[in-house]
Amino acid sequence: MATPTRRRPRAQAETAAEAMLYEQVAQKLQEQVASGVYRQGERVPSVRRLSDQLDVSISTVVEAYRRLESRGVLEARPQSGHYVRTRLWQPPAQPEISRPASSPTSVSVSALALKVLRASRDPEVLQLGVAVPHPSLLPTRALNGILARIARRNTEKGDGYDFPPGSPELRRQVARRALDAGCTLSPEDIVTTSGCQEALSLCLRAVARAGDTVAIESPAFYGTLQTIEQMGLKAIEIPTCPRKGISIEALRLALDRWKIKACLVVPNFSNPTGAVMPDERKKRLVQLLAEREVPLIEDDICGDLAHSAPRPKAAKSYDRKGLVMLCSSFSKTLAPGYRVGWVAPGRWREQIEHLKYVNTMATATLPQLAIAEFLEHGNYDHYLRKTRARYAQGIERMTHAVARYFPDGTRVTQPAGGFVLWVEMPKAVDALELHRRALARKILVAPGPLFSPKQAYRNCIRLTCALPWDERLERALVTLGRLANELA
Amino acid sequence: MATPTRRRPRAQAETAAEAMLYEQVAQKLQEQVASGVYRQGERVPSVRRLSDQLDVSISTVVEAYRRLESRGVLEARPQSGHYVRTRLWQPPAQPEISRPASSPTSVSVSALALKVLRASRDPEVLQLGVAVPHPSLLPTRALNGILARIARRNTEKGDGYDFPPGSPELRRQVARRALDAGCTLSPEDIVTTSGCQEALSLCLRAVARAGDTVAIESPAFYGTLQTIEQMGLKAIEIPTCPRKGISIEALRLALDRWKIKACLVVPNFSNPTGAVMPDERKKRLVQLLAEREVPLIEDDICGDLAHSAPRPKAAKSYDRKGLVMLCSSFSKTLAPGYRVGWVAPGRWREQIEHLKYVNTMATATLPQLAIAEFLEHGNYDHYLRKTRARYAQGIERMTHAVARYFPDGTRVTQPAGGFVLWVEMPKAVDALELHRRALARKILVAPGPLFSPKQAYRNCIRLTCALPWDERLERALVTLGRLANELA
Repeated sequence: MATPTRRRPRAQAETAAEAMLYEQVAQKLQEQVASGVYRQGERVPSVRRLSDQLDVSISTVVEAYRRLESRGVLEARPQSGHYVRTRLWQPPAQPEISRPASSPTSVSVSALALKVLRASRDPEVLQLGVAVPHPSLLPTRALNGILARIARRNTEKGDGYDFPPGSPELRRQVARRALDAGCTLSPEDIVTTSGCQEALSLCLRAVARAGDTVAIESPAFYGTLQTIEQMGLKAIEIPTCPRKGISIEALRLALDRWKIKACLVVPNFSNPTGAVMPDERKKRLVQLLAEREVPLIEDDICGDLAHSAPRPKAAKSYDRKGLVMLCSSFSKTLAPGYRVGWVAPGRWREQIEHLKYVNTMATATLPQLAIAEFLEHGNYDHYLRKTRARYAQGIERMTHAVARYFPDGTRVTQPAGGFVLWVEMPKAVDALELHRRALARKILVAPGPLFSPKQAYRNCIRLTCALPWDERLERALVTLGRLANELA
Repeated sequence: MATPTRRRPRAQAETAAEAMLYEQVAQKLQEQVASGVYRQGERVPSVRRLSDQLDVSISTVVEAYRRLESRGVLEARPQSGHYVRTRLWQPPAQPEISRPASSPTSVSVSALALKVLRASRDPEVLQLGVAVPHPSLLPTRALNGILARIARRNTEKGDGYDFPPGSPELRRQVARRALDAGCTLSPEDIVTTSGCQEALSLCLRAVARAGDTVAIESPAFYGTLQTIEQMGLKAIEIPTCPRKGISIEALRLALDRWKIKACLVVPNFSNPTGAVMPDERKKRLVQLLAEREVPLIEDDICGDLAHSAPRPKAAKSYDRKGLVMLCSSFSKTLAPGYRVGWVAPGRWREQIEHLKYVNTMATATLPQLAIAEFLEHGNYDHYLRKTRARYAQGIERMTHAVARYFPDGTRVTQPAGGFVLWVEMPKAVDALELHRRALARKILVAPGPLFSPKQAYRNCIRLTCALPWDERLERALVTLGRLANELA
């Protein structure tokens, strides 16, 4: 193992080699904790000792310990050392695999979605309903600084139409980073879009027409459901496990039975359940669809927000036939308001380029350039490390609060990435009523029926954990718990 | 008439009162020229004399003369004074009213459009094909400066999702300016969009489904044609006059005969012909459609680019039933790459808000705020005055070149706003072939067939006049004329 001679100043970005070394050391120790070498509450070796044991520098161990702290594996006790963190409580059970209706159905969630959306604009409302990070958790100052510099520098080019496929600078950066998700893409494989929502809409339009049926997870992201509704498509919901994602077996049965024009999946940190498909299942999913020549529209918007490295692969990485249309954006990671997303549409490359033109003509130029520069100069990785830890912590605290305040029998997902929790309350609790009563108290939650074509999941809510933990939030969770108990 | 005591420094914005005064003086003199009081080549009164005659300040007359110069009415001769400008040539005849097919037809222009679009990205090609102002004619430095300031100032809010209906600041400014087009709108009537193209797409989706028929002008903007094609709609083309716009009589017959779900019109400076419907015809158009309860989708993207003040009214100004959906953007006036447009959708306000959410979730935040600030602080009017004069001059010079270099019998429109010319060559000239041969010589023109569902107008091209006049452009027009003559 190589030994870096000297710790670089923090502000400077780590090299990829350094990052890998830190991660190796962290993982080694994490495995020892997992296998019981060190148990809850026990002290792990001192920094100096582990440095000797592993023959790496002190600074490398310090960084590895820092990572394990932020993942909740270790805790530092002043003047004493690092200890395996004690979990004082068992997290609640996770929801079971879903059992949606087994035939295609039309979709109607729009009216409800609009209500939630309107409340999300009210600055007096505590925003636990929309999956948007709190502004304080976004690298806005750095990114806007880059945008401002580019805007001042570009007195000509920066304001012209950036016709599809969009900014070459951004597409180059996206192609580079796609390697982390196991995808070998060239800039020419990519079309930039006005956010992931446009990417998903364009993909659906490329492969389906009104009356067609598409297969979706259940529960599923309501933005996608609304696109399906607006296009007059039918959706067949496939049972989905909060741990392992969409059921491939159930999907196979559905493919046997119905004419399915596309399958829409969020394999990594699904919205709302946070499920991650194990890589082997992703591979089987891609193979199954490839056998039937059915396109897979893959939404990877939270893929970079894995709570621990490395980030999981994209299903696209197993695509051999150009059937996977990989969609993502920087709305969950960097700047929702920049409206910059992208799609690698495989064999539909030309159609998507054209549909993008017809839909919005071009993506805003300067925001694309700013994000490309942010990605290029390594700030992104640094920011991601910090943010992943924060989201992991937010998820843990929120889970804790739900376990404490919500009715007995409430189940909660345990997402390993992203920043939303899916909460399944006892059957009696009407999530729509809870949503209404909470909103009257200036708290917005996303009611479960939003995530299903026919408004099932009536006893579920989705909570956003990407906001600073403070007294107001704690009080709100007490209130939510009380309201839920009243309805139980 | 009030007398401003002192000329303000140029950099400072004029007040509305001052602008009105300048315009009154300019119009008074322009009327005298029109009525023959002063004839071509004659000297008009000196600044001092007119100042005495009209009892206004010297600086007011100077400004009024400057306006008349930029409109091509007067010319200044050094040491001598101002003269009524001599036209040394008669512009060519305008094309006749169009005679399109009289039944609904499916649309297929995409393949051709994509070809033109790709060439429009080549920096080595002289861009006469896409209706985009040359970067040097846009106020990019000022606008980007505002954007940079806002980006640095907003470390939080500026990067959040700006969910539909979009930026209140921008909607307020749009509502204020809509008064110039005769429309009384409140900010709540408006939804911001990612450019006018998104606005038009959303409107079509709100009122029509695959298989439906919509009425359009002929020739019509190819972006709209592609949206129609992509949605699987049918188009019925209505005869359209290069001077007065769409034929209301023909539209009435079509409405009698076919089930038409919407009518799409560009009443002001239609693309490609530059036609302006006289206000009386706009009123009749709105009334006719109101009788039948058929929505009018009005594209007013070039309305602010009238070559002389005041700008023409929008058809929306005659809307009493909420049936007119007024769409526009700042892509032709300020910054194509900002992707900021808007729609005042009348009775479809809620549907459009929802469709906007489903389509792209939100419009990019900072570009909206920058444009709102640019509009608010009066730079926009100043910029428009300068630019209108430039476009008028560009159109005149281009017309002159076409008259000189193109085959005998070539007809050209005489647009009173915007920056495109529609050129009808003798029947024998194949515009697609001309387009191909010109592109081989690094000159891009938009071939006529782009502007028709079934690729009619095979002897027409559209030329963009929004670029600085230089030797390269002059040479390109000589080349175009030679190529056209070879094909004639």
